[in-house]
Amino acid sequence: MSEVRGALEALARGRPVLVYDADGREGETDLVVASQFITPSIVRTFRKDGGGLVCVTLPHDVAKRIGLPLLEDALRRLGDHYPLLGDLLKGSPPYDARSAFSITVNHRGTYTGITDRDRALTISRLAQVCAEAMESNGMKAHSAFAREFRSPGHVHLLIASNPLLESRKGHTELATALTMMAGLIPTATLCEMMADEGGALPKEEAKKYARGRNLVFVEGQEILEAWGKWSGSWLRESLISSI
Amino acid sequence: MSEVRGALEALARGRPVLVYDADGREGETDLVVASQFITPSIVRTFRKDGGGLVCVTLPHDVAKRIGLPLLEDALRRLGDHYPLLGDLLKGSPPYDARSAFSITVNHRGTYTGITDRDRALTISRLAQVCAEAMESNGMKAHSAFAREFRSPGHVHLLIASNPLLESRKGHTELATALTMMAGLIPTATLCEMMADEGGALPKEEAKKYARGRNLVFVEGQEILEAWGKWSGSWLRESLISSI
Repeated sequence: MSEVRGALEALARGRPVLVYDADGREGETDLVVASQFITPSIVRTFRKDGGGLVCVTLPHDVAKRIGLPLLEDALRRLGDHYPLLGDLLKGSPPYDARSAFSITVNHRGTYTGITDRDRALTISRLAQVCAEAMESNGMKAHSAFAREFRSPGHVHLLIASNPLLESRKGHTELATALTMMAGLIPTATLCEMMADEGGALPKEEAKKYARGRNLVFVEGQEILEAWGKWSGSWLRESLISSI
Repeated sequence: MSEVRGALEALARGRPVLVYDADGREGETDLVVASQFITPSIVRTFRKDGGGLVCVTLPHDVAKRIGLPLLEDALRRLGDHYPLLGDLLKGSPPYDARSAFSITVNHRGTYTGITDRDRALTISRLAQVCAEAMESNGMKAHSAFAREFRSPGHVHLLIASNPLLESRKGHTELATALTMMAGLIPTATLCEMMADEGGALPKEEAKKYARGRNLVFVEGQEILEAWGKWSGSWLRESLISSI
């Protein structure tokens, strides 16, 4: 069984998987789980064993329907009122052309928003609102989102690029592609894995962590190849069904 | 020796302290250190033993001089372009009238921005730029900040309310007051402490953690009392020197 197939099966069972992007990019492993299966215990594992930011991906189309902008685009528009914010956008991150960050949110039913229980509530409702947004129009998606969430919050939203995995091949896109290929609600929750020595967890140590816990470790290149086949066959099928 | 005096001495030696806000508010303990003394190892302790978001406070005057807005004010201005963002602001957090969040930043010398080394670099430079901003005009503070930092990033900025500890008595204000009373650069780095059971770390467990590591645990009320005396005497002195 390929690593990607193993990852899809694990995600569909609500298990976390480890995703390494690429040697030339961040060179970083993220813990990834399908957002619909988040639990307070998974949030705890992510913050304790990962140590980075707990973030939730949304497909570009869903974010657009809801009305969520990339943070960069939003900050750019603020440059007139707050010239500093325009200046802080200058130059790109060293590892990619742009960051995938959107805003931060808390579910309105949370208290501080930061506890494992609060973040799990925010994330599981994000998954449901994402599923609903895919089947509704923009107006409805917008009001459903605003009814449930508040900003600023403690969960970072990430918006995947469009078309997926063409211009940008980051953890946001890789994890979103996995949830789509697994036939799940297309949102993943992820957290970067850090080492004790001040840097990112080296690839070999991340693999060791995965082996020790019987988790799947999968690399960006493998996901890209699987995605190429999967989206190709989906495209062919939809072309055939459209003629 | 009072707990506050112990906290000030610890902060001046670069040691973390634990700050509990109040039973009726978040009921939460944050790990706090003076930003000027941050190290990758302290970031690691914060994310591992705290588990919340690693945030950096700035006094209101410094943020104003640099040109940094509260995120709420920025999002409100975006309501014309992105109506969703206006709607996400509706209602306040359950524990206070507003959140202290400003934007997220990375130092331009970081790579991904999330490793312990990267966050420590971002935070220690924030402390220096904060110190410089206090002695320079707005134009200079703005360009120094934009030269060193990029947004979006992985370190959350928090802006303390003005006047400090009057309208808002959160961790942002309490920690900022401690750095000021300790005579340090008035910026603190903090991280909320979580329990393994899904909620915030209970006060008694936070006290136990502090005792086990010989760290000071101090409550909001004690800081408020000390601040009342300290800022009162400062005010009297400056009144006397002005006549």
